[in-house]
Amino acid sequence: MSRWDPDAKGRLAEAARTLFIEQGFDRTTVADIATRAGLTERTFFRHFTDKREVLFAGDMLSGRMSDVVASAPSDLAPIEVVTLAVEDACDAITSSPDWSRDRARIVAEHADLRERELAKMGVLAAALAEGLRARDVPASTAVVAAELGVLAFRLAYERWAVGPRSERLAPMVRVVLAELADVAGHR
Amino acid sequence: MSRWDPDAKGRLAEAARTLFIEQGFDRTTVADIATRAGLTERTFFRHFTDKREVLFAGDMLSGRMSDVVASAPSDLAPIEVVTLAVEDACDAITSSPDWSRDRARIVAEHADLRERELAKMGVLAAALAEGLRARDVPASTAVVAAELGVLAFRLAYERWAVGPRSERLAPMVRVVLAELADVAGHR
Repeated sequence: MSRWDPDAKGRLAEAARTLFIEQGFDRTTVADIATRAGLTERTFFRHFTDKREVLFAGDMLSGRMSDVVASAPSDLAPIEVVTLAVEDACDAITSSPDWSRDRARIVAEHADLRERELAKMGVLAAALAEGLRARDVPASTAVVAAELGVLAFRLAYERWAVGPRSERLAPMVRVVLAELADVAGHR
Repeated sequence: MSRWDPDAKGRLAEAARTLFIEQGFDRTTVADIATRAGLTERTFFRHFTDKREVLFAGDMLSGRMSDVVASAPSDLAPIEVVTLAVEDACDAITSSPDWSRDRARIVAEHADLRERELAKMGVLAAALAEGLRARDVPASTAVVAAELGVLAFRLAYERWAVGPRSERLAPMVRVVLAELADVAGHR
């Protein structure tokens, strides 16, 4: 139980995930998580503000997405650039698909977590729009493409989380984008 | 300063709006608002949880939008139904256009208010999707149309708030929807 355990954060996250699934998010305390990880509550709070934060990977996705936008071929349409970034994010969050599904269910069941998810999506949209503007995309198009991409990301994730386990998340982004284009076109 | 003043809520809201503009949202306290309205802090807290709540009209928009969706002609496409509801909401929030612009600026400047705005938009999208399902629109189309309409609402409002004062908000919804369709179609 070393205070300087280099993998303390990873062990705490793993313990939290296991407990959220085993006994439910609401019934799991920080003390439970620390005990399961063989660490102290004090150590938990050095890595996370609260147990909710374990569900939100932080700004990891925002950085990844910005990198994809910056390095995408220069002749791609804004929505294509955004789609590449969102597909990359999908691969990142589904590297542990079972956990990603359970996480989606926990978020869907709690109003405060749904709000936090929307807030994180707002941060992603702002980062994508900023990245597009840096590629000389006009400001209003950058915002529209970024928001559309993030909406497709959120809807694809919600749909994937309750779909068959054999399905992959990333390809669903283009399916949802096609639906958005189709519905928006029926004016 | 009657405890049962029937218009206490309206006077408190009006006083709050005036002070938010005159001296800034951050520097305005509940005590300031109550004093300006000629009422007590206790009365303020019978009507509002905190000063932030003055900025969010509550569930008024959700109810209006649901009514429009329920009474729209049966042959309209889902996105058309949603657009009617969003245009109606635009008319509602711009009955005091100067305040609506100031409110947008206050929200844009505060991360916590931006999050609350996104949360309220999530509630509106859920209400619209529910209303569409009640019209026998398939569930996934209902969600896509509702989310698209709410996104157009939010983007149009953000754009309108920083545009020329002569511009009306409601017509901008269709402009933004056309841009969303156009950008989404460039895949």
